[in-house]
Amino acid sequence: MFKVQVYVTLKEGVLDPQGKAVRGSLLSMNYDEVQEVRVGKYIELFIEETENLDERIDSMIDQLLANPVIEDYRYEVEEVVSN
Amino acid sequence: MFKVQVYVTLKEGVLDPQGKAVRGSLLSMNYDEVQEVRVGKYIELFIEETENLDERIDSMIDQLLANPVIEDYRYEVEEVVSN
Repeated sequence: MFKVQVYVTLKEGVLDPQGKAVRGSLLSMNYDEVQEVRVGKYIELFIEETENLDERIDSMIDQLLANPVIEDYRYEVEEVVSN
Repeated sequence: MFKVQVYVTLKEGVLDPQGKAVRGSLLSMNYDEVQEVRVGKYIELFIEETENLDERIDSMIDQLLANPVIEDYRYEVEEVVSN
């Protein structure tokens, strides 16, 4: 079994209204040191042994987990003992 | 300037309807190897030098970015050159 940690973030230059809203809230809570906030997705996939693992992960992400037009992604794969 | 990478995930045992929905979609797209999906948040904070940085980050997360009742979090801090 493999544990895949996927990090999806908005591309540089893409407007991040959610990040702006979070920053606004933090400022109103007197966290004035916060200069910028970017909000993305962190997804854990537990996947059984399969051929072309990386290719399969890339296509899962491209087709469903991230929007390739406005989002970037990276992922890490580690083998885990299935419970 | 500090870049803080925050990872927010649901606690073990907490129902993850979003994760279940994503898994269902992946199965319908013939990614049968996917056994489980957990969906969380990945947040980047850019913060100016401040006293008690870790304490301030913990309280930002506890108060706004994560729900301590059902979510766990971890974060990494790195110093960056502000642009």
